[in-house]
Amino acid sequence: MAKLWEGMISGEKSLAIEKFNASINFDKRLYREDIEASIAHATMLKKINILTDDEFTKIVEAMKSIKEDIEKGEFIFDESLEDIHTHIELALKERIGSIAGKIHTARSRNDQVNVDVRLYLRKRIVEIEESITKFLSVLINVSENTIDIIMPGYTHLQPAQPMRMAHLFMAYFFMLERDRERLSDCNKRVNMLTLGSGAFSGLGYNIDRELTRSLLGFDKISENALDSVSDRDFIIEFLSCVSIIFTHLSKISEDMIIFNSNEYGFVNIDDLYTTGSSIMPNKKNPDIFELIRGKTGRVYGNLISMLTIMKSLPSAYNKDLQEDKEALFDSIDTVLASLEMISECISTMHFNKETMLLACENGYINAVEIADYLVSKGLAFRESHNIVAKIVGNLSKEKMLFTDLSIDEWKQYSSKFDDDIFNILDINLSVEKKVSEGGTSYKMIIEQIEKAKKYL
Amino acid sequence: MAKLWEGMISGEKSLAIEKFNASINFDKRLYREDIEASIAHATMLKKINILTDDEFTKIVEAMKSIKEDIEKGEFIFDESLEDIHTHIELALKERIGSIAGKIHTARSRNDQVNVDVRLYLRKRIVEIEESITKFLSVLINVSENTIDIIMPGYTHLQPAQPMRMAHLFMAYFFMLERDRERLSDCNKRVNMLTLGSGAFSGLGYNIDRELTRSLLGFDKISENALDSVSDRDFIIEFLSCVSIIFTHLSKISEDMIIFNSNEYGFVNIDDLYTTGSSIMPNKKNPDIFELIRGKTGRVYGNLISMLTIMKSLPSAYNKDLQEDKEALFDSIDTVLASLEMISECISTMHFNKETMLLACENGYINAVEIADYLVSKGLAFRESHNIVAKIVGNLSKEKMLFTDLSIDEWKQYSSKFDDDIFNILDINLSVEKKVSEGGTSYKMIIEQIEKAKKYL
Amino acid sequence: MAKLWEGMISGEKSLAIEKFNASINFDKRLYREDIEASIAHATMLKKINILTDDEFTKIVEAMKSIKEDIEKGEFIFDESLEDIHTHIELALKERIGSIAGKIHTARSRNDQVNVDVRLYLRKRIVEIEESITKFLSVLINVSENTIDIIMPGYTHLQPAQPMRMAHLFMAYFFMLERDRERLSDCNKRVNMLTLGSGAFSGLGYNIDRELTRSLLGFDKISENALDSVSDRDFIIEFLSCVSIIFTHLSKISEDMIIFNSNEYGFVNIDDLYTTGSSIMPNKKNPDIFELIRGKTGRVYGNLISMLTIMKSLPSAYNKDLQEDKEALFDSIDTVLASLEMISECISTMHFNKETMLLACENGYINAVEIADYLVSKGLAFRESHNIVAKIVGNLSKEKMLFTDLSIDEWKQYSSKFDDDIFNILDINLSVEKKVSEGGTSYKMIIEQIEKAKKYL
Amino acid sequence: MAKLWEGMISGEKSLAIEKFNASINFDKRLYREDIEASIAHATMLKKINILTDDEFTKIVEAMKSIKEDIEKGEFIFDESLEDIHTHIELALKERIGSIAGKIHTARSRNDQVNVDVRLYLRKRIVEIEESITKFLSVLINVSENTIDIIMPGYTHLQPAQPMRMAHLFMAYFFMLERDRERLSDCNKRVNMLTLGSGAFSGLGYNIDRELTRSLLGFDKISENALDSVSDRDFIIEFLSCVSIIFTHLSKISEDMIIFNSNEYGFVNIDDLYTTGSSIMPNKKNPDIFELIRGKTGRVYGNLISMLTIMKSLPSAYNKDLQEDKEALFDSIDTVLASLEMISECISTMHFNKETMLLACENGYINAVEIADYLVSKGLAFRESHNIVAKIVGNLSKEKMLFTDLSIDEWKQYSSKFDDDIFNILDINLSVEKKVSEGGTSYKMIIEQIEKAKKYL
Repeated sequence: MAKLWEGMISGEKSLAIEKFNASINFDKRLYREDIEASIAHATMLKKINILTDDEFTKIVEAMKSIKEDIEKGEFIFDESLEDIHTHIELALKERIGSIAGKIHTARSRNDQVNVDVRLYLRKRIVEIEESITKFLSVLINVSENTIDIIMPGYTHLQPAQPMRMAHLFMAYFFMLERDRERLSDCNKRVNMLTLGSGAFSGLGYNIDRELTRSLLGFDKISENALDSVSDRDFIIEFLSCVSIIFTHLSKISEDMIIFNSNEYGFVNIDDLYTTGSSIMPNKKNPDIFELIRGKTGRVYGNLISMLTIMKSLPSAYNKDLQEDKEALFDSIDTVLASLEMISECISTMHFNKETMLLACENGYINAVEIADYLVSKGLAFRESHNIVAKIVGNLSKEKMLFTDLSIDEWKQYSSKFDDDIFNILDINLSVEKKVSEGGTSYKMIIEQIEKAKKYL
Repeated sequence: MAKLWEGMISGEKSLAIEKFNASINFDKRLYREDIEASIAHATMLKKINILTDDEFTKIVEAMKSIKEDIEKGEFIFDESLEDIHTHIELALKERIGSIAGKIHTARSRNDQVNVDVRLYLRKRIVEIEESITKFLSVLINVSENTIDIIMPGYTHLQPAQPMRMAHLFMAYFFMLERDRERLSDCNKRVNMLTLGSGAFSGLGYNIDRELTRSLLGFDKISENALDSVSDRDFIIEFLSCVSIIFTHLSKISEDMIIFNSNEYGFVNIDDLYTTGSSIMPNKKNPDIFELIRGKTGRVYGNLISMLTIMKSLPSAYNKDLQEDKEALFDSIDTVLASLEMISECISTMHFNKETMLLACENGYINAVEIADYLVSKGLAFRESHNIVAKIVGNLSKEKMLFTDLSIDEWKQYSSKFDDDIFNILDINLSVEKKVSEGGTSYKMIIEQIEKAKKYL
Repeated sequence: MAKLWEGMISGEKSLAIEKFNASINFDKRLYREDIEASIAHATMLKKINILTDDEFTKIVEAMKSIKEDIEKGEFIFDESLEDIHTHIELALKERIGSIAGKIHTARSRNDQVNVDVRLYLRKRIVEIEESITKFLSVLINVSENTIDIIMPGYTHLQPAQPMRMAHLFMAYFFMLERDRERLSDCNKRVNMLTLGSGAFSGLGYNIDRELTRSLLGFDKISENALDSVSDRDFIIEFLSCVSIIFTHLSKISEDMIIFNSNEYGFVNIDDLYTTGSSIMPNKKNPDIFELIRGKTGRVYGNLISMLTIMKSLPSAYNKDLQEDKEALFDSIDTVLASLEMISECISTMHFNKETMLLACENGYINAVEIADYLVSKGLAFRESHNIVAKIVGNLSKEKMLFTDLSIDEWKQYSSKFDDDIFNILDINLSVEKKVSEGGTSYKMIIEQIEKAKKYL
Repeated sequence: MAKLWEGMISGEKSLAIEKFNASINFDKRLYREDIEASIAHATMLKKINILTDDEFTKIVEAMKSIKEDIEKGEFIFDESLEDIHTHIELALKERIGSIAGKIHTARSRNDQVNVDVRLYLRKRIVEIEESITKFLSVLINVSENTIDIIMPGYTHLQPAQPMRMAHLFMAYFFMLERDRERLSDCNKRVNMLTLGSGAFSGLGYNIDRELTRSLLGFDKISENALDSVSDRDFIIEFLSCVSIIFTHLSKISEDMIIFNSNEYGFVNIDDLYTTGSSIMPNKKNPDIFELIRGKTGRVYGNLISMLTIMKSLPSAYNKDLQEDKEALFDSIDTVLASLEMISECISTMHFNKETMLLACENGYINAVEIADYLVSKGLAFRESHNIVAKIVGNLSKEKMLFTDLSIDEWKQYSSKFDDDIFNILDINLSVEKKVSEGGTSYKMIIEQIEKAKKYL
């Protein structure tokens, strides 16, 4: 088959050059959108009397048959034919002859590439939003199941204050909820019709861009043709959204990898998502979480790729822009697969309530309550802190807990201690004190969950 | 002065450690916000009866006096005192004694840092939006002044089609307009009250977060305390917005540097913004545009810094997060200064109309019109293209233009050429054909400008 | 076929999980190295009497037959079998039964992965060095061909001083020469035997690592098993070398794209490497250079990917490390193809000597010589500069050149001008003055070329 | 004071423009190198008779007095004077009048900037190498102190095999040793004289670059002037070396933060390097390690900054290059401070031998020895694995250890178990089996340490 630009310049392209130029290996996934946009464009051309009814019908029929062939795997892709647009163009020509050429009236290659990518990304954003929503549902569900589990909350990976485990999962919820909102904002800038820009200066036809917009379901129409053909903002913004999602997915993964360690033992990742050792059944390698954490690398890399490409690129179309697609497609695939996997991993996870409670006690995590107790009995703040510090220091050396002390032992530290000290050793009490909005008390967690459900 | 955590741990901090830990050198710029948030917090504490009227008044008065001292340059900053919060805290204690401590009721250090940064960034976003708006006005103004200038439009830096210079500036307009819209979306995630999260588990007080929100003018209240203290999404998103702005500023700079070259000669950057040579007055180094283009590096770097910091960071506060501020502040300063500079450079620029028109002619940029002419006279598309290619080839070798050919010479290429060929050599005609929405014809540029004005 | 870890953990891996875990799609290119390393390992096992002669022979024969099958395309790859190592392992088992298992004595999966990647990368570095060497030869050749072309040298893209075009190509030479040297240094850290590290703690056998090293041609043996299994420094260093190469390739591309523009017209990229317009034969889009410039994005992205993966990864093997290969392979492929393409483009390029000389004159690039002339005639430095500035200013307005002035006109600017002024207007003279080492005079360029030839 | 280019172009620079252009705030740290290079240059000028002895002496004296003034803090820096070179230049002029100008003979501003940065970086590389060497000594020392500590080695953060703690620290040793080697290779490309390149085309004087090289102690002389003025490879390579160092420092930090957690409890970071809680003395926030981990962000960011600046920058000097210094200086400062801090933290750390041993036992880390025992008693591999898996499963549920089982209990799992089973429960035995080079047995660790000492 003849390439479109054949004969325009002298010399025969070598195979290596063709390969270097070609994008068909990765842009073939745009075939649906290319055909969809072509049909919309043809509809518009018919309306403005550039296509006759008959021509229109022939083009649409042929387009549909090409689509079917591709989906049946009966369409041959060939690296010497550059890109998906050329493939479809030549197939159209083969099927309906010279009429095929009329579809290119009032449309440039840049027009085609841009509208295809926008249609494609718009669909993928919806899918990613749905995947996030699924994950959000999992998080609500897991939160409801872990509201009665008390675990140490950490700062600097040091036990700081006890909290309900649901507090952790709801934290993840609100991170991902912001991600969904951010994607939705990004989509405002994706969902714009650029078709109708020509090479960059507009077209010499009174085309009806409003009709095309409406047929393709775009929210608005791009307002300057030169800007339209080289605008890749929406790709960078999308790649940035995905990068932020991965700051969250890598955080969750890191938490779970640590909590799944033998030393923490807070959670058990389901066997399905781990690999292990044939003789150490307790060894469960959290492969999926590690892969997700590792995939943060490619997602950041894709963002930097695109930013680098756009840095100081002169106006209008430059061939550099062909490099935009692989980074985009890779981040799309990665975030979809990772969201799916993390949803499954989290929803099938097992929780070791006793271990987490013990970790609270081992961390003397309610020490502050004891200090408050002494203050309430009349001791000065600093003195009461010193006493509690001394108790913790001693217990820690002996590997003992607060609950291991008898009333006599308490009294050795301060005569202010009385039997009512035992009433405040329950870690649950510390948790229930956190009554402020967004806090970890039962009531506030329930409130968080209720708010969360409204987001879905 | 004593550091807050003094005595908590054994040993004396060495100077090197203090220096390594300290953030005062860069976070002192948050003093206004720290005081603003403290006063709002105090107001809330008064309402829920934790502060008496008298205590409240003393705290507020002292806070105001601290602010004044800082602004008068009479406040001493000391690296051994870690950060701005400690500085203000200790100053408060010195001025009003132990009452000072009550301001920390129901508030953690994380609370303070987060609310300060959000207040600060919110103000800066408004400033950046204003700077963009100013630049947008310049672009409209310059577009109005260049609507009658015809220049070559390029693809691959090769002349492709003629366009009005205003088409270029309006392209910049719509790029920057998207940037402004993107910042505004980003601000939705900045403008949220996180104060009231405590260390991460909420607070043991019935605080009135709605009151604090309203006093500080935030749009909403964060919904999970654990998420709130470690959320830096809004910083990454902001840094990403700035990076996208710099894809545009570096593109504009690249265009202008090329157009300002001796070989292009399309524009003259005003002397104020260039440096030059004492004996080659025509040498005008476009330093400002080059610096802006170069500053793209630091802006991308800041984004990667923040993404790297957040990668696989475990939940809740980790000291790594202290590293968030310098990248943020640097991108803020850079984008504000660069927008200011580029606005000035563009608004004072001189345009060489004749040179640009000549470049169109030298590029045979209206060759397609001549081919269309031959088609209209009955020649086949391919044949007419071949003829025009031959003409261009010959003229190009002779360094001649279309307008240099006599009617006899035209006829040597094809007998179809007639006197009316001269009617279509006017490049303006090519421009005026581009009547589609967003196109470069006069009417469409005017329409773009009118739409643009509505955005301001 | 059964996966190796089957039965170790409960549950059936879903297809999605297998796909998420699998690396076979990209690591299959390591088959040669996997077999090469296995044969070396088997040789060593035979020497230390773990394999009998017969077992050794069977393993080696089978390995060779597997390699042949893969190369004939008769080997079936299956995503459910994770990676290339499992594929070969299971094929070995199918072919020679339980003896196959003995090849895994004293060798871990980590051992295999690492040695394979190091062997693979070592070969590719040699190929890249060869590609650079080829490009260096082209640059020397082009320099020899352009030594008599005088062009404007630019700072800030403004004409500053004239230079021989060969000076530019020799600049490229020394950039790429450093790149080759850097790769060679990098290879010192690639070319190390890590095989024999076990999981991370060494092996329970008296293996002969020196024999394996010698068989595989490594320079040295890794000295700590724990470090060995998780060391990816050499990959990052390599990706960084490639990134630096692309700072050069993108610089060369940028230069050539600008010089190939209609306005500069200094070079014509050969038609083979451009695309164009059917009716504007002078329009030659420099696609290859643009693609190379654009590919800088993916190469930087790959570096950031790998750096991100390694950031704060705990010691020893973590599954995140599986993400190392795609970035590595992509940068290898990209740099090899781009070096090939740029060599071809540069070696077939056409140079417009006259245009470049005219650009020197249009830039009044030898103005400094005229000022020096006046100084030599006794004028003060500042005064002479002022006079020349005035001349340039006037000529520039009139679009005239120094050579357009008659002696009378010269004298109007200063009586110091005499007929000998015409002797110094030859731009060649300015060039020949630059006699310092590394300068652009004929002699110094020849010296550069001679030095350069020694590097090859 | 008058700026150097004053009067060259019309208009008065506004304060904002001066600020935007100025680099004095960060490049003033180059004053020593600027003076050092100027004195070497003057020496050379004297030798080639451009400076008289008297002029030379005056210049050198004045240069020394300027240096003294700067070091005494008596030199006034002024943002309107752009950079350090202008500051010193004007000060020289003030002190010795018009002779000052002669120092600029045969030297461009680019020459100055480049030689200064190379001199500066060369010194800093030596300092960083020394800091690494100090850290390497610490690591050897700590390894010698921890050779008798047995800890779990992890893969996927799951206990996999026991190892000597020294094995971990020696792993760090070899990472950092590679870093030092890499810096040393980098220095080959830093340590090159570029002075003598002029603007980019060389100089019109027969300068003696070999003398200057020798005076400044450079290894070689740059070979092409155009390349020399815009070469920033050595900065990128250095920033990349620092980034790799930080993959190691962040790994060490991550390890230590986890091992310092309450749940692991393997190490106690010395109080000096932690912050804590007044009532939970066991809470020791590993701030320093977290800051180091976080600083990985800025170091990666600086690398990306520089790569971005260089992407597709046209040949020769462009003002963008002024942006190179801040990234460089920041990475230098960061790596020096971080190496210092991590050396101190590691050298003062406390190790909890018992806890680590218990973690081995809790991880059933020597399960494979028991399986081997059964195999040695005649059981099939798979059967023996199944039995051990069953034992581990049961013990794990009961929170019991291997050593808790009586011989009768062992026999309930298999009659093959006999009294000699107790001989192999010692985890030390597993460690001592790893006799291969680079392994974790006592002998091999000693060998590692001995090799390591030779590197110092």
